Amino acid sequence: MQAMTTTDAHPLRELLPEGRVFDDVDVLEAHRRDRATFCPSGTPSVLVRARSTEDVATTLRWANENRVPVVPQGARSGLSGAANALDGCILLSLEKMDRILEIDVEEQIAVVQPGVINGVLAAAVAEHGLFYPPDPGSRDISTIGGNVATNAGGMCCVKYGVTGDFVRGLEVVLADGRVMRTGRRTAKGVAGYDLTHLIVGSEGTLGVVTEVTVALRPAAARPLTAVAFFPTVADAARTVAGYLGKGHRPSVLEFMDRPTVLAVQKIADLGFPDGMAGMLLVQSDRGEAAPAELAAFEEVARSFDAAEVIVADDPAEGELLMQARRLVGDAHEHLGLALLVDDVCVPRRHLVDLVEGLGRIADQHGVRVLCAGHAGDGNMHPVVAFDSDDEAETARAHQAFDAIMALGLELGGTITGEHGVGHLKRRWLGEELDEPALWTQRAIKNALDPNNILNPGRVLP
Amino acid sequence: MQAMTTTDAHPLRELLPEGRVFDDVDVLEAHRRDRATFCPSGTPSVLVRARSTEDVATTLRWANENRVPVVPQGARSGLSGAANALDGCILLSLEKMDRILEIDVEEQIAVVQPGVINGVLAAAVAEHGLFYPPDPGSRDISTIGGNVATNAGGMCCVKYGVTGDFVRGLEVVLADGRVMRTGRRTAKGVAGYDLTHLIVGSEGTLGVVTEVTVALRPAAARPLTAVAFFPTVADAARTVAGYLGKGHRPSVLEFMDRPTVLAVQKIADLGFPDGMAGMLLVQSDRGEAAPAELAAFEEVARSFDAAEVIVADDPAEGELLMQARRLVGDAHEHLGLALLVDDVCVPRRHLVDLVEGLGRIADQHGVRVLCAGHAGDGNMHPVVAFDSDDEAETARAHQAFDAIMALGLELGGTITGEHGVGHLKRRWLGEELDEPALWTQRAIKNALDPNNILNPGRVLP
Repeated sequence: MQAMTTTDAHPLRELLPEGRVFDDVDVLEAHRRDRATFCPSGTPSVLVRARSTEDVATTLRWANENRVPVVPQGARSGLSGAANALDGCILLSLEKMDRILEIDVEEQIAVVQPGVINGVLAAAVAEHGLFYPPDPGSRDISTIGGNVATNAGGMCCVKYGVTGDFVRGLEVVLADGRVMRTGRRTAKGVAGYDLTHLIVGSEGTLGVVTEVTVALRPAAARPLTAVAFFPTVADAARTVAGYLGKGHRPSVLEFMDRPTVLAVQKIADLGFPDGMAGMLLVQSDRGEAAPAELAAFEEVARSFDAAEVIVADDPAEGELLMQARRLVGDAHEHLGLALLVDDVCVPRRHLVDLVEGLGRIADQHGVRVLCAGHAGDGNMHPVVAFDSDDEAETARAHQAFDAIMALGLELGGTITGEHGVGHLKRRWLGEELDEPALWTQRAIKNALDPNNILNPGRVLP
Repeated sequence: MQAMTTTDAHPLRELLPEGRVFDDVDVLEAHRRDRATFCPSGTPSVLVRARSTEDVATTLRWANENRVPVVPQGARSGLSGAANALDGCILLSLEKMDRILEIDVEEQIAVVQPGVINGVLAAAVAEHGLFYPPDPGSRDISTIGGNVATNAGGMCCVKYGVTGDFVRGLEVVLADGRVMRTGRRTAKGVAGYDLTHLIVGSEGTLGVVTEVTVALRPAAARPLTAVAFFPTVADAARTVAGYLGKGHRPSVLEFMDRPTVLAVQKIADLGFPDGMAGMLLVQSDRGEAAPAELAAFEEVARSFDAAEVIVADDPAEGELLMQARRLVGDAHEHLGLALLVDDVCVPRRHLVDLVEGLGRIADQHGVRVLCAGHAGDGNMHPVVAFDSDDEAETARAHQAFDAIMALGLELGGTITGEHGVGHLKRRWLGEELDEPALWTQRAIKNALDPNNILNPGRVLP
């Protein structure tokens, strides 16, 4: 597709209200990429900042008639390149559709526009004693629309589930500009196919979400927190499987390896002990039952040789530890190296094989592999860190990145637990899915977007 | 479609192993219907009792090539007519694929064939200290495959969610006989579109499920139970909304109106007080916190004029009360009247409008309307009871049945919370869904089943 020249005459200017259409070169340049590394981004023809469902519908109708690709964008905090520009595309930003339309305390639901920041929604419902659990690492910057597009996870998911588990209904603009409602406001409903969960996780390739109805929960008790330090990463991994296998339901169960802890300590000294290969961070929000849940954790951790287990006395101390976990992304970036972030998710009993395998992969390819992740879900984020000025090392880094996905699949897992396929893992989808499943996905894409204008080339190989 | 003659020469006999193909008239007659009333059932050409995925694949391949409709069946306990025979169809029974393939205690998942009875799975995992929550009223007879086909609910859903919330992955035979895997074994995964939840609730119209991977939970504490009796149904309904609106999470919250209680008492005398218009049955499985959760219920119930609130002292007494609730279906059948069972689900704050509206509808149409249901979810089963020998009354009963769905929609609800659309509510799907959503559903159906052999005419109007 050839890039259009960016002139004032973009036809969408005539069709959309003022203040929606931007084609200034600097603005377009600033919107070309999400946070994925090593994904190509093309030259967009125009940026549309939608302020209403009608804006989105108008844009898609025109794009469909003129066969122009559309790349929906939220906060561009995604990690798979699904929001990167394509040559000649319309960048369709939903960021300005950022109103919380309704918080219904009695029904425990909220209705929001897609541009609402995850953390803003969580804080708003907390004021009413309610809880929106999905908490991706990006929660302070990522939007609910983006969370829906990737079915985002986070730390609370080990107990409460992922974004899709909280989405009851959607307003979606179809490829040809028609506006569809899916799902419901009620607790249950089985009227027709579940289009809601077909759209959740479809990364902007089947429709553009313009409204989201989410389920909320009553606020949980303030959690208690414990950390445990292990002499080997394998001991930490075995503790995860052992603890959860006993039927405990912590609200957080996170892993960081030693290089990650050291990287975090560089930006926030937490006084963690030296010489440990890995740590686990666990929370229980079960109120009066929390101390017992953490005591059970300590017991399992010590049985797997934890050298130190610290249970935070007060919730504030726990919050500090959680902040340390949330600094992992920044800490990795502060290493000053290029990064490739994996997102494999494996059965918990195979976490040990995964973390041990990472060491082997790092050695084999001569790159650093750091690791942190949502251990309780088996969802880990191994990070390949390398010098991107070194061509040979860069090639080896990509091989290591691929080797980690291969290992995840070999262990009965998935190539992506929560970041999505986007561009980055597109080549790998065919390794995970069988041919009839790929055929089915393509058949649905072709049926709903026959002109292939919605984020073409993303997700499906 | 013309009914085939039933001779020994049915071509599937040549293609399938022995003991799979049945065309004895009595056998076919016995398999023509599910438990829905007033749904047409046609004359099948043959019954295939599949014993393997390969049997299903062979059957569908032949059916697709020969354009013969296929009606998948489990225990035929459905209430929407989705498993009723079509003229000339192949009845494809999954009942004999009834093995629990795996219970993985550490990962808290089970892998089962579709013919496994819900209650059998629940009991099997309970032996390992695990819990499969979805508990449709039919749990002692209905199959997991059928539960998946309708996204079945039940009593525990108010706290734990419906069938689909526990389905991680499926093996599905597509219309042309190809075998597809969807989803995953892991806690999370976003590799490609969520085909799992597209199939869940699709009532055999998009593929035939041959294996189900379900998530389990650690066993909950044995629940404590309370019942409350109210002078009006409106008081009971207001108690539900008031109690849940305060953030309580009971594991069961069920409603029965007076005629239902009386009908149940006829088959199992529970010594319930006289003169009450409605009752609520509530359970808490929060262990040490359960008494407080029930005390909070009592407080709300009394604030809405509950005349009597009884908290069962021991779990066994609670189990008796639950059995009474489970007798509702039988009790209604013992009335000796024809029944039309609604399945509307409304926002909880509108439960009061729903139960009050039922009285009006009964009066207007000159029929009896009894009501019980999963009040905590807003999912009620109003039952229109009438003399089917009386043509005029029968017509009025159907009008009342429709009026209840219209009321559910008017109150912001859905025509079906857990029973599915099947044949019974097909005319009504277009009242609930907008045109683009119907178009999308049809587009998906056409894409995945271009010859329209899979349970044709069901779900989509």
